[in-house]
Amino acid sequence: MVYKNEYIAGTYRIKDHGDRMGYLRLDMNENPEGLPEDFVQEVLKKITPEFLAAYPQKDRLIGAIADREHTGTQNVTLVNGSDEGMRLVFEVFTHAGGRVLTVTPTFEMYKVYAEMFGLRLDTVPFGENFGMDVGDIIQGIKDETNLAVLLNPNSPVGAVFTQEEFERIAQQCEKTGTFLLIDEAYYPFGAASALDLYRKYPHVMVLRTFSKLCSMAALRVGFLVGNAEDIHLIENAQSTYNVNSVGILFAEELLKREDILQGLHRSVEEGREYLVKKLESAGYEYYAAGGNYVLVRCGNPAKTAAGLKENGILVKSYKSGILEGWIRVTLGSRNVMGKFWEGFEKAESWDG
Amino acid sequence: MVYKNEYIAGTYRIKDHGDRMGYLRLDMNENPEGLPEDFVQEVLKKITPEFLAAYPQKDRLIGAIADREHTGTQNVTLVNGSDEGMRLVFEVFTHAGGRVLTVTPTFEMYKVYAEMFGLRLDTVPFGENFGMDVGDIIQGIKDETNLAVLLNPNSPVGAVFTQEEFERIAQQCEKTGTFLLIDEAYYPFGAASALDLYRKYPHVMVLRTFSKLCSMAALRVGFLVGNAEDIHLIENAQSTYNVNSVGILFAEELLKREDILQGLHRSVEEGREYLVKKLESAGYEYYAAGGNYVLVRCGNPAKTAAGLKENGILVKSYKSGILEGWIRVTLGSRNVMGKFWEGFEKAESWDG
Repeated sequence: MVYKNEYIAGTYRIKDHGDRMGYLRLDMNENPEGLPEDFVQEVLKKITPEFLAAYPQKDRLIGAIADREHTGTQNVTLVNGSDEGMRLVFEVFTHAGGRVLTVTPTFEMYKVYAEMFGLRLDTVPFGENFGMDVGDIIQGIKDETNLAVLLNPNSPVGAVFTQEEFERIAQQCEKTGTFLLIDEAYYPFGAASALDLYRKYPHVMVLRTFSKLCSMAALRVGFLVGNAEDIHLIENAQSTYNVNSVGILFAEELLKREDILQGLHRSVEEGREYLVKKLESAGYEYYAAGGNYVLVRCGNPAKTAAGLKENGILVKSYKSGILEGWIRVTLGSRNVMGKFWEGFEKAESWDG
Repeated sequence: MVYKNEYIAGTYRIKDHGDRMGYLRLDMNENPEGLPEDFVQEVLKKITPEFLAAYPQKDRLIGAIADREHTGTQNVTLVNGSDEGMRLVFEVFTHAGGRVLTVTPTFEMYKVYAEMFGLRLDTVPFGENFGMDVGDIIQGIKDETNLAVLLNPNSPVGAVFTQEEFERIAQQCEKTGTFLLIDEAYYPFGAASALDLYRKYPHVMVLRTFSKLCSMAALRVGFLVGNAEDIHLIENAQSTYNVNSVGILFAEELLKREDILQGLHRSVEEGREYLVKKLESAGYEYYAAGGNYVLVRCGNPAKTAAGLKENGILVKSYKSGILEGWIRVTLGSRNVMGKFWEGFEKAESWDG
């Protein structure tokens, strides 16, 4: 009999084969419009046949990230999107039969990777009004917990953990021998970074991505920051050429353009302000804390989402748990949110 | 104590931080020149800010590959370069304490992944004149062998396995419950494809890449072909967005251009013909079988490689085993091989 890994065989994956291009995509927290056109054209000009034919080189981007984050190059490693980053952390710092702790609801891939690597997943639920007592998280971190993984700001519930809360969690992790991964996919939307925490608590690693604020989800670039020894282990576990050259090039060029980064951030904040005002004046219940997204309570979220799709707009709707009755709307520019609002009003009165 | 995977911790990785751009790269079997300039420009025109901001979609490329290879979409999955493809095969079809069989010398990553996943690596050595008795491989495949992995054509020794040999190997694998991965990175340079073998022997999977003939090493696109059940397991083990959109786009467009694919192939064959004539007339011992590379025997390969580097040309030199005394030269166009020959003659008489 050919051996087949039983955990991988038993992992449940959702595969969405829908074509999302052509829609206004407010369902996966991408930037619906993307980077400035002139910047994209300028970077594309650097791509030659020779550039495409050669294996990727990571050092320059690692150097630029280390400079920007005031850390060493040995403290940074690139990953093929944050999906691969967290997968590598599971591979290195957990073992089958161990336990992983997170909150619920949160990013679905933590559950997928827990299944894939044969771990028990412990979850601390958000309560009424999306509240969370950090004491419950701390209590949930046991000696058997290999890994605690927290998304900050969280998604779909955009709750924000403070630095003081992470200190307390990190202290507990130190006691129990638990690795702490802080997933900062939605940095810098409303939460301070814990990127420096590894200096005080060496078992803490921070994960960032160029997919959200940086508007490069197509290019699969993320990075991990932590103590040099643990980063070395992650690099030991990587494929040699795990990140592609075009992604590396765009990330390098974008980090030189503070003006663009600030513009991308400002654009989302303007969209948030606009949408919140609209929701308030129309009397909708909403939750807009951290992240580039807002939760909106609808009478019939599946119907609202279907109505929006009819109008060419994708959002995420929830049918169970504390998010039952809510949709999550990715924030874009003031212009994008105007289009959303128009579609939303139609969808809410839609008879589909 | 934080858990750290002992196999990953004990894995030895070589990290080359040298900058290879600006050199004529004949050391890693990339296409030194790349795709036609007008094709590259045409594809780049399709890249918009919105395209870069959206998560990748794989279905269209999977469909195109399935059509081309006369198989079903459920028999194909995309991988982030063949490095990730073989890593996934190790993850799904081997277990710590198991055994993996390959030949030696071959692609270095098989050894790396064997270490990473806690497997014993059994190797069947090439003999004098780079000969290999397939009977030795068959004998090496035991009940404890989880995986046999063979590169065809092999590299650095460009030996070629025939379909009849693979049949015999697959029969043995069926007896011992061994998964057989055939790595066709260097298809179609001198070896027939075993892509259809999974229909007869369901435990066989073929790995292809767009990095070699297709001249897209920067973009990290490869694929696995096998029976639907095993492909499903590989997809269960993947990150959701493991291949970037620019790679997917270039692969899609290239598969529409049979003329370009044939031109890339012809160009290497012209380069091979030119180089072999030069080597023969100068009296060099060489080995030019399968693959887009040629082995050349030098008096002092390290010195020759250093001399070539002085002249802006990278090749791979070997200092031990049966390749002691040889360099491996990646084949490019007639024009590229002309430049190589000029540098090689200088390097061979160089006093560095």
